[in-house]
Amino acid sequence: MPGEDAPEHRHTQHAFRFVLEGESVWTVVDGDPVAMRRGDFLPQAGWNWHAHHNAAKEPMAWIDGLDIPFQYVTEAQFFEPGRDEISGPEKTTPERSRSERLWGYPGLRPVSAVTQAPGSPLFAYRWADTDRALADQLALEGEGLDSTVEPGHAAVRYTDPATGGDVLPTIRAEMHRITRGAETEPVRETGSSVYAVFDGSGLVTVGGTTWSVTRGDLFVVPSWQPFSAKSQAGSTDSDSGALDLFRFSDSPVFEALRLHRVHAPGTAR
Amino acid sequence: MPGEDAPEHRHTQHAFRFVLEGESVWTVVDGDPVAMRRGDFLPQAGWNWHAHHNAAKEPMAWIDGLDIPFQYVTEAQFFEPGRDEISGPEKTTPERSRSERLWGYPGLRPVSAVTQAPGSPLFAYRWADTDRALADQLALEGEGLDSTVEPGHAAVRYTDPATGGDVLPTIRAEMHRITRGAETEPVRETGSSVYAVFDGSGLVTVGGTTWSVTRGDLFVVPSWQPFSAKSQAGSTDSDSGALDLFRFSDSPVFEALRLHRVHAPGTAR
Amino acid sequence: MPGEDAPEHRHTQHAFRFVLEGESVWTVVDGDPVAMRRGDFLPQAGWNWHAHHNAAKEPMAWIDGLDIPFQYVTEAQFFEPGRDEISGPEKTTPERSRSERLWGYPGLRPVSAVTQAPGSPLFAYRWADTDRALADQLALEGEGLDSTVEPGHAAVRYTDPATGGDVLPTIRAEMHRITRGAETEPVRETGSSVYAVFDGSGLVTVGGTTWSVTRGDLFVVPSWQPFSAKSQAGSTDSDSGALDLFRFSDSPVFEALRLHRVHAPGTAR
Amino acid sequence: MPGEDAPEHRHTQHAFRFVLEGESVWTVVDGDPVAMRRGDFLPQAGWNWHAHHNAAKEPMAWIDGLDIPFQYVTEAQFFEPGRDEISGPEKTTPERSRSERLWGYPGLRPVSAVTQAPGSPLFAYRWADTDRALADQLALEGEGLDSTVEPGHAAVRYTDPATGGDVLPTIRAEMHRITRGAETEPVRETGSSVYAVFDGSGLVTVGGTTWSVTRGDLFVVPSWQPFSAKSQAGSTDSDSGALDLFRFSDSPVFEALRLHRVHAPGTAR
Repeated sequence: MPGEDAPEHRHTQHAFRFVLEGESVWTVVDGDPVAMRRGDFLPQAGWNWHAHHNAAKEPMAWIDGLDIPFQYVTEAQFFEPGRDEISGPEKTTPERSRSERLWGYPGLRPVSAVTQAPGSPLFAYRWADTDRALADQLALEGEGLDSTVEPGHAAVRYTDPATGGDVLPTIRAEMHRITRGAETEPVRETGSSVYAVFDGSGLVTVGGTTWSVTRGDLFVVPSWQPFSAKSQAGSTDSDSGALDLFRFSDSPVFEALRLHRVHAPGTAR
Repeated sequence: MPGEDAPEHRHTQHAFRFVLEGESVWTVVDGDPVAMRRGDFLPQAGWNWHAHHNAAKEPMAWIDGLDIPFQYVTEAQFFEPGRDEISGPEKTTPERSRSERLWGYPGLRPVSAVTQAPGSPLFAYRWADTDRALADQLALEGEGLDSTVEPGHAAVRYTDPATGGDVLPTIRAEMHRITRGAETEPVRETGSSVYAVFDGSGLVTVGGTTWSVTRGDLFVVPSWQPFSAKSQAGSTDSDSGALDLFRFSDSPVFEALRLHRVHAPGTAR
Repeated sequence: MPGEDAPEHRHTQHAFRFVLEGESVWTVVDGDPVAMRRGDFLPQAGWNWHAHHNAAKEPMAWIDGLDIPFQYVTEAQFFEPGRDEISGPEKTTPERSRSERLWGYPGLRPVSAVTQAPGSPLFAYRWADTDRALADQLALEGEGLDSTVEPGHAAVRYTDPATGGDVLPTIRAEMHRITRGAETEPVRETGSSVYAVFDGSGLVTVGGTTWSVTRGDLFVVPSWQPFSAKSQAGSTDSDSGALDLFRFSDSPVFEALRLHRVHAPGTAR
Repeated sequence: MPGEDAPEHRHTQHAFRFVLEGESVWTVVDGDPVAMRRGDFLPQAGWNWHAHHNAAKEPMAWIDGLDIPFQYVTEAQFFEPGRDEISGPEKTTPERSRSERLWGYPGLRPVSAVTQAPGSPLFAYRWADTDRALADQLALEGEGLDSTVEPGHAAVRYTDPATGGDVLPTIRAEMHRITRGAETEPVRETGSSVYAVFDGSGLVTVGGTTWSVTRGDLFVVPSWQPFSAKSQAGSTDSDSGALDLFRFSDSPVFEALRLHRVHAPGTAR
């Protein structure tokens, strides 16, 4: 809500924010103010100092994803409070954060960045890029190239530009776009996923159950439950003319420990 | 020169082109036409089919960097000729290549890209991005942040977005910008470097020898020779107001085989 | 107990057996009968078929360590029953298992082993080797070398000879020997450990609590609790004249996900 | 020859010795005297101090393998002379070197060894182990298991126990045993190999040329030349009753830089 604050703190939990509605909140990560707008993905690797403030007159809505359950059961959690007040300059939000100015150019890495912390050094993945990347995949598919996951189904994964791997050590995040009328093949895999319907509407099937979803809905796909989605996005309910699904999962945990298992059409079990 | 062609072929040598002057040549990599303009860096991982054509009325100049000496002495070279003629659509060069549409968004990876070939899947690193990234590092330095290699010396490394590592398995490529009046500290390291003066002018010192360089010059830093550069770029001889040095080296070979050794101020030998 | 059987099965859980007392049970791993004797460590990577049989007239005691809690909370568990009966040849236990004949030579790897499964291909780590390795570390310490963890404290880690890393993707296993009178420095780290007193006796301190332990005791060190041990092994209660502690932990999970944190004397937190 | 010395020195070149005839020379590696006997393999990672002395009354013969050509062309070579005289204790050779007492137990790693230098910390791979490992592979083949490279052809690779990878960053070393009458399938691969006939006799074919070899012979297989060997070892010319071939190659260079290419029966090119 307007005027709300979260004081500075840090914790070992890896976290992210994905903005569903509104804009004008900023988050300060290690002294770097980062603007937040609808569709932006903002990772927050563990043990970075951070604070939030809503400078807007409107409410905002975002998903806060953290690996708290995992760190809780493994007893890996640490927390420290930070400064009572953040400085004046940290309260103004430039158009582009420092992290984007250092790491936000495709394939270019600052030579000065020698050490490698866990988690992405890029603090914001802007919707304009994500939107265009998905549109490009579908356009390339239309030109006859093998650019999508399956017909009518584009997807990008948010990655750590320093490694090309997942954006956080314990969390995978992706944006999927399913064109109007397209339906994905059922896939089952180990690990749990949370989906948010960013735009459009359609039907989702998890295990034996099918239901309708529309913009703003969240749903969960438990481990090893078959999942498929069908886009029924109408001409008035979607900017992209498609069903846009934000997804996050704990797949990196399974892959790092060699517990990952996928069963999809055409895949050996 | 205008109208010149290089027929389709492929080889195990890793290669790149860095454009020094002119534009309008395209190169076709695995059926993907890629435009070339001054300041662009275009990697060419081994064993991709490729051809070139200059559709322009003007001559162009670029650096062709290949690991031929290395592959020659290790007897690892293979070569295959390709088609006699490339298709019509491959002769038109879109503003953005397919590879840029798939891989050219910062931190975003196509989920459809499952296999990992050696070398970057991104076929063009555009000058506009490189130029802004260097300018941003220097601006951040001016704001008091630790964003440059050393005072007045910004640098970006071209990387493979799928791994965050060097753009090619055997070749490192970087762009350095040294602001007017700044001078770099001498560094010596194993491995050889080739530098091209992309813009500006100044003095370079290699071993015990110092000489003047200006736009278009090339020079070499042999293994373990101390190297430093001083920018004397004038207000009329440089777009960026600085000495811009393109550099490529065989450092990835040394690092992969644990033969890398650096001696710089403040570094243990 | 004598005559007891466990029918053939397999599961994704990684497991091991560490034999505390007795001998003559064999375990059959992928058709390879493996003898079990006091002090032997027998890893059992997930998804290998295995069965057990006690051919002896005496009872045996061993620790069965599995990552069930971890795989339960992450919902990664799979199970399959195997054959009702194992074959005759599988019921005779040769002196050395097939896996030891292929992988049991120090630093030598069979060239025929091309693929790399998760978990060690070596199914038995014999007590005679472990005992001598610990004795050698202490002897080398006596010759003035830096061979032990700290004075009077030798330790070996069971590793996968194909990688040099932990013996199982989710489980670390080690044997520690603390000479009579020696006391270890307190260490705290993320992750939980289980200790079994294989031989000798002494005092252990976990958090603020100290108690006596002797051969056959088990105890637990929860995450981030300081732990130290003091050997009070007497001349009659220990083969090795020392306190021998078998330890297993979930450290590989923490290291793979970059959640590992150690606080020991002389270590930055 | 008896009484010969090599004074202490160190260099960046990775090296090894493989003993063909005789015994009683010792080599001192970082103050650790290591005995040398027929069939032993002794790696010498770059930048370790080392010296040699022949305390015997008989001459000895061994292969000295170094990566000098590679480090020469890449300009990576460094050299330092050491002490004029080594100490008395370093001139006596214990049955087992310190490195074997720390690293010579299968699958066991000293917990005290925290840092990871390039190259194996195990300074001697004894013939008794190599011989038994090869005999075991052939015995397991006789029991119907898939333990050899191909029928009648056993092989072990010398590895770094800390990584499971090649014993040296730039050099692969293996011992092959081909049973009497067996013949290997032709294989061609990038990278060059040197073979020494350790025992037995037979025919080797490299490219289009076939010739006889016997104990003590050396031969070379250049990059991408097909190679096969046929064992004609007689009952009197071989301890093992087979053709025993020691092999070393530069394969790790090719694999690290993704230049490796193999063409063998049943392998896609």
